[in-house]
Amino acid sequence: MHTFADPLHRAERCFAGREAVVDGDVRLSFGALVDRCRGLAGALAALTDPGDRVAVLAANSHRYLELYCAVPAAGRLIVPLNTRHALPEIEYALADSGARVLFTDRPASELGDLSARVERVVQLGEDYESLVGAGPRAQLGAGVSEDDVAGLFYTGGTTGAAKGVMATHRNKIADGFHLQSSVRLGEDDTWQIMGPMFHASGTFNILLCIWLGARQVILPGFEAESALDAMETEGSTITFGVPAMLSALADTQQARPRDVSRLRLLGFGAAPASTALLRRTHAALPHVELVSMYGATEMGPMGTTIEHLERFIDDPRARTAGRPIVGVDLRILDEDGRELPPGEPGEVVVRGPNVMRGYWNKPAQTAEVLRDGWYHSGDVGYLDDDACLYLVDRKKDMIISGGENVYSTEVEEILYQHPAVAECAVFGVPDDRWGESVRAAIVLREGSEVTPAELEAHCREYLGGYKIPRQIEVRQTPLPRSGAGKILKRELRAPFWDEAERQIH
Amino acid sequence: MHTFADPLHRAERCFAGREAVVDGDVRLSFGALVDRCRGLAGALAALTDPGDRVAVLAANSHRYLELYCAVPAAGRLIVPLNTRHALPEIEYALADSGARVLFTDRPASELGDLSARVERVVQLGEDYESLVGAGPRAQLGAGVSEDDVAGLFYTGGTTGAAKGVMATHRNKIADGFHLQSSVRLGEDDTWQIMGPMFHASGTFNILLCIWLGARQVILPGFEAESALDAMETEGSTITFGVPAMLSALADTQQARPRDVSRLRLLGFGAAPASTALLRRTHAALPHVELVSMYGATEMGPMGTTIEHLERFIDDPRARTAGRPIVGVDLRILDEDGRELPPGEPGEVVVRGPNVMRGYWNKPAQTAEVLRDGWYHSGDVGYLDDDACLYLVDRKKDMIISGGENVYSTEVEEILYQHPAVAECAVFGVPDDRWGESVRAAIVLREGSEVTPAELEAHCREYLGGYKIPRQIEVRQTPLPRSGAGKILKRELRAPFWDEAERQIH
Repeated sequence: MHTFADPLHRAERCFAGREAVVDGDVRLSFGALVDRCRGLAGALAALTDPGDRVAVLAANSHRYLELYCAVPAAGRLIVPLNTRHALPEIEYALADSGARVLFTDRPASELGDLSARVERVVQLGEDYESLVGAGPRAQLGAGVSEDDVAGLFYTGGTTGAAKGVMATHRNKIADGFHLQSSVRLGEDDTWQIMGPMFHASGTFNILLCIWLGARQVILPGFEAESALDAMETEGSTITFGVPAMLSALADTQQARPRDVSRLRLLGFGAAPASTALLRRTHAALPHVELVSMYGATEMGPMGTTIEHLERFIDDPRARTAGRPIVGVDLRILDEDGRELPPGEPGEVVVRGPNVMRGYWNKPAQTAEVLRDGWYHSGDVGYLDDDACLYLVDRKKDMIISGGENVYSTEVEEILYQHPAVAECAVFGVPDDRWGESVRAAIVLREGSEVTPAELEAHCREYLGGYKIPRQIEVRQTPLPRSGAGKILKRELRAPFWDEAERQIH
Repeated sequence: MHTFADPLHRAERCFAGREAVVDGDVRLSFGALVDRCRGLAGALAALTDPGDRVAVLAANSHRYLELYCAVPAAGRLIVPLNTRHALPEIEYALADSGARVLFTDRPASELGDLSARVERVVQLGEDYESLVGAGPRAQLGAGVSEDDVAGLFYTGGTTGAAKGVMATHRNKIADGFHLQSSVRLGEDDTWQIMGPMFHASGTFNILLCIWLGARQVILPGFEAESALDAMETEGSTITFGVPAMLSALADTQQARPRDVSRLRLLGFGAAPASTALLRRTHAALPHVELVSMYGATEMGPMGTTIEHLERFIDDPRARTAGRPIVGVDLRILDEDGRELPPGEPGEVVVRGPNVMRGYWNKPAQTAEVLRDGWYHSGDVGYLDDDACLYLVDRKKDMIISGGENVYSTEVEEILYQHPAVAECAVFGVPDDRWGESVRAAIVLREGSEVTPAELEAHCREYLGGYKIPRQIEVRQTPLPRSGAGKILKRELRAPFWDEAERQIH
């Protein structure tokens, strides 16, 4: 029933004069926002046909938000592109989606062959403004139904080639309603977007905020000093970040505290947060509710959530990714697809109106992950007796050493407890004797020093022998990360496995 | 995607050991509640076939809540019957629905011919317990889809013969999500049910509460002393009542204050609340958020809502029924179906996934009110510039006197401002000269005295001449009300019009 047009129409009718979006010096009322969306829809009607794909390659901005709303409301599919990808990767997504138009903030000189891939490049400056400001207004939502695809959200993340996740209008609307069960947003709230809007966690709040009349403050990207400044000056009440952002926010707020008293909720996800990080974040922002969220682009993106994690931060339960969010059904399956009881780790599968239609042009890969309406995440976790999910690993990140399963997050959790460790990733490398052995890549906190032997001794205090990293690398550069902030273990792992494969062949 | 089984399954997995329902001395955990629902579903499997109707005629109880959840989750249709109706009216609904089973708390001696109308009567005592406790458990939600009808909710209310509103699973699930946008419920909340559960406003919280893990306290019916007692002893945080309940709560709390400090939200609707009543309620419960809600059984029931009415109680805007709730589209149409601009009264029509499938076995009446997905409510109202709805009347309650429209709520609002007036109803009676003239039926506050002439003088201060009641009746008995608490103007009006009709024929 609902499409992206519904929140826009309600906001225009109910809150026309109120502030909807803040982006630097730009402040848009809900009335102005919806009018601009109509202008954009009018421009799209001239440039494209219904069902066409429209790509966006840009830093966060109010224009990105307009595109996110208006492209689907105009019956086109939005294709957000990962700005951290190299040109060939971007080119792949452009070609795979068959986008006819590219909206970008990059100068033509930096687009390489991308311009040749589309019929029209619209620069997100004057070019965009002349399209949106001057042209005819188009009706939003006309001819669009809830089961139409709203966008292709490319994901590849930590494994394999990028796939375009087809999210329908209903998927995204449902995800918004599910999210509300956890964040309980109201019209007095201000949601600060600081993660990248090409990722689901940078846009998953948008429809809900507009529907409820909540403000949105958009930062071009994440930087801890400006994020805290914006919280203070704009009175942001709620935001979402990946653990690396929490870490930077905590350190920065401790070093130079801002008045962020209006911030009431800090959601985090996309990667596990260590207990040590949660403690630091709570110490820096003691009045703030911490909400753990787990999901995937394929889930729309919300899968689980748990509120008020700061209330049991010293409890082992604080490591949970949360309970299945309202509206989402979640199970743990063994290799044969049988449901596992609490405590036993297996693959996380979810079902609900939020779950994607499938991968664009990839029926085989779709069939692999979508079975009887259940999305098979490839993540490994177990539930406790209260249905709280504990993620132990990506399927592919599980290390099998001497027949024993080693879940890398467990080892990482211990490494993070060492005061010198800022970032770490644990993964398997080939081992002649054990099949695989455990390797850790470490980045130290500024000014800290530690030897691999000391870290090994630290691990030995808490972990069984087969789980102790046999190789510990202290790196001078940050760990490689995906656009969504996930550590790219694939890249860390690749050199070792390539060599092993060479030995075999 | 979702059916009534989804909230039950989530609550069982996440909150099995926590308290779900309080009903007098009975306290059920979520685990026990869902187990009892499975037992009930097992009993229904033996007594009925999928799609069969199952009627309930009873005061509020935990068993009523179980029936409300389990009958639809078992793929049957629940048919709540109005306990305030006379036997012939109840018999009509039983016959119209074709219910095979009747669950009731009335002794056989008080059922008259009702028993003969169904195959089986289940007494809501030991009879019920033996069915639920001993029998086989059935899977909830098996073979049920979101577009299946979950129940027939008989409405007739203030006009005409009773019609069975077909509400689908999706209707009720959507209504729950819409409701959450306004009440922002969490697992720490306790919702007190005090209105009748045969009415939509006595059950509209149930799925949402279960989904979120919120407690529910069930009172057998409304009585102000016990309602306040329960708020105190159970720490109820949220409740809903019709204006007559607010009035009784306010007076009772002023007379003998309870500690109702945990109550955070008081929703009200089903009939307009006068400004004077809102002031009294706010004075008695100054810490409580007042939320105005408007809807209809056909809407699932939520149509509009507005939060924190107590913040602008002295503003003319406090008379609003609210904005279209998140998820609901609302328009005001003229007689020809054209949308009217703000300020102009016309018929209220709504659209959304909450809107009923239609009336059971009444295609003609369905076609009359459901057009292109829009439900035509028969209510007359206008919107202000912020899409706040102001109800001026039921279509049929509009009085046309000398060619001028008189909206009876406007006259009632003025009468309620008089300190002696406890209840009033304004309606049209035949008038040889003007077509109709305005008549008021009044019930005085205890210990108050006023003459009709004084009331007429009071009205004359605020109203144009044609709106002044020409006839004012001060009654010694309460005004007649429907089960939902709506004043039955039909009954007040009938004697006059019967006489007029006799004169014509």
